[in-house]
Amino acid sequence: MSTQSIILVLDLMGVFAFALDGALTGIRSARVDIVGVMVLGVTTALGGGIIRDLLLGQTPATFQDWRYIVVALVGATLAFFLNRQLRHLSTPIQLFDAAGLSLFAVIGATKGLEAGFGPLQAVLLGMITGVGGGTIRDVFLNRVPVVLSANTRLYAIPALLGAGVVVLSDIVGLGSIWFAVVGALVCYSVRVLSLCFRWNAPPPPGAPPV
Amino acid sequence: MSTQSIILVLDLMGVFAFALDGALTGIRSARVDIVGVMVLGVTTALGGGIIRDLLLGQTPATFQDWRYIVVALVGATLAFFLNRQLRHLSTPIQLFDAAGLSLFAVIGATKGLEAGFGPLQAVLLGMITGVGGGTIRDVFLNRVPVVLSANTRLYAIPALLGAGVVVLSDIVGLGSIWFAVVGALVCYSVRVLSLCFRWNAPPPPGAPPV
Amino acid sequence: MSTQSIILVLDLMGVFAFALDGALTGIRSARVDIVGVMVLGVTTALGGGIIRDLLLGQTPATFQDWRYIVVALVGATLAFFLNRQLRHLSTPIQLFDAAGLSLFAVIGATKGLEAGFGPLQAVLLGMITGVGGGTIRDVFLNRVPVVLSANTRLYAIPALLGAGVVVLSDIVGLGSIWFAVVGALVCYSVRVLSLCFRWNAPPPPGAPPV
Repeated sequence: MSTQSIILVLDLMGVFAFALDGALTGIRSARVDIVGVMVLGVTTALGGGIIRDLLLGQTPATFQDWRYIVVALVGATLAFFLNRQLRHLSTPIQLFDAAGLSLFAVIGATKGLEAGFGPLQAVLLGMITGVGGGTIRDVFLNRVPVVLSANTRLYAIPALLGAGVVVLSDIVGLGSIWFAVVGALVCYSVRVLSLCFRWNAPPPPGAPPV
Repeated sequence: MSTQSIILVLDLMGVFAFALDGALTGIRSARVDIVGVMVLGVTTALGGGIIRDLLLGQTPATFQDWRYIVVALVGATLAFFLNRQLRHLSTPIQLFDAAGLSLFAVIGATKGLEAGFGPLQAVLLGMITGVGGGTIRDVFLNRVPVVLSANTRLYAIPALLGAGVVVLSDIVGLGSIWFAVVGALVCYSVRVLSLCFRWNAPPPPGAPPV
Repeated sequence: MSTQSIILVLDLMGVFAFALDGALTGIRSARVDIVGVMVLGVTTALGGGIIRDLLLGQTPATFQDWRYIVVALVGATLAFFLNRQLRHLSTPIQLFDAAGLSLFAVIGATKGLEAGFGPLQAVLLGMITGVGGGTIRDVFLNRVPVVLSANTRLYAIPALLGAGVVVLSDIVGLGSIWFAVVGALVCYSVRVLSLCFRWNAPPPPGAPPV
């Protein structure tokens, strides 16, 4: 199996996880119909990658390869029909979502470097790829995006760290698929640890306690 | 009159309908000033096409041809000055809006096919062209987009069906202006029937009744 | 110092002003953590320029030159640590923000003309550059964008006037850096006067009084 195929499979796993999570969040948070569930699933899953590709000046990968849309629709359809059963699986779904975040952050940073972006921009692009879809989902659900809010555990920071590992390894001339794996593991671990130990990013000095 | 000119005229009619509808929705739903009315009218009218063209990697048609902006501004200006009179015309405006949806869905799918997109992507692009502007309008008005919400009659589904007719006729090798007309009529009829008979898309199983 | 360098310095001053303002608005209006403050500062500062460059079909300037991101992060970091002290400086910050608006409107219109856009489109692009970032900030903060709302003083109109001066001077064949300066001064003056004298854009006829 070529590196290209491995990346595609991992990317599609991230798409599936985000579609499931986006659709379930929609069902829990708003009065949506089947169209709403599908749109929320698909935009959560594909939104980050679409923004990434537009910023790179490329036709979105999700419009070039039909498998992205199909996998996102399958995830959203599962969430639509099985939302009551999946409610009891919130921990595995959060782990699944953390995996999607890790894969997207690492793939976004890699694509930024490949396109000749500087290190700072590549890290930012990795973060945008990871958190972009969920941010569109929250805007559609009419709430302040989770990624901005206090007391929601760490979400953007693990993505930044994961993307940072990829970019650092490239700067020191060690860029390889293995450092992408390390970056994804760093992102995944920090995200999961922040869920376990209720880590939050600091609020501004002077902000009222929760 | 060439096919190109016919499409431009139809596209501009859709722009006018959406600008009127977007501006009136803004006046009804929020405390907006003349700038707000204009911005809501123009983004509702041009937003779907701009997203479509960005996804296609093209300079938005609305920035290449000044007539799009002028027609959108005329629609929003009419809505600004005549909003009290137009309040009594909500049925014709809904029919007008359904026509805009139909034209945009069909034009979006056609542009997707012309750009070499696959069938699934072309259908999706047609839907995005149809519902994109209204979705931006709803995000600006700080509410869950109509297209996602239960009990708002069918909106995205007619657009999907209209775009689907265009793409299917292309797959079986019958692609022609006549099938675009058929697609638009299918979209228009399903939308209007759903308004008459209060059809709604199904909510997720287990969702509480309204 | 070349014209190019002058424009870059002015652009970065606008970025700094908008980052400060976006981050402070976030701290005042929502329960955000450090990630939220940074994201709001950076999107307010860079959002308008990114939308402008995507509409122009160009790689966003903010991704080509790392100084944009660094300046935006510095502005947001200052706002994060000094938000209590800066609360007493709301008038200078509003003047600073007006300067950012003026610079962005003029630069946006200039880039539109350089890319071969028509006069109407160039004016619109100048306005979008000026108000785009703040609009994304308001969408993230879950409120109707200031630019649409009644009783928020003039904001988009000064940007339109400033961009209009640039485009008019180009139409009559006088396009030069000096008219960009005049455009920026017109925008700045009208914005500041509207703050002093509480000018508002007119609401639609029939709208209830505030």
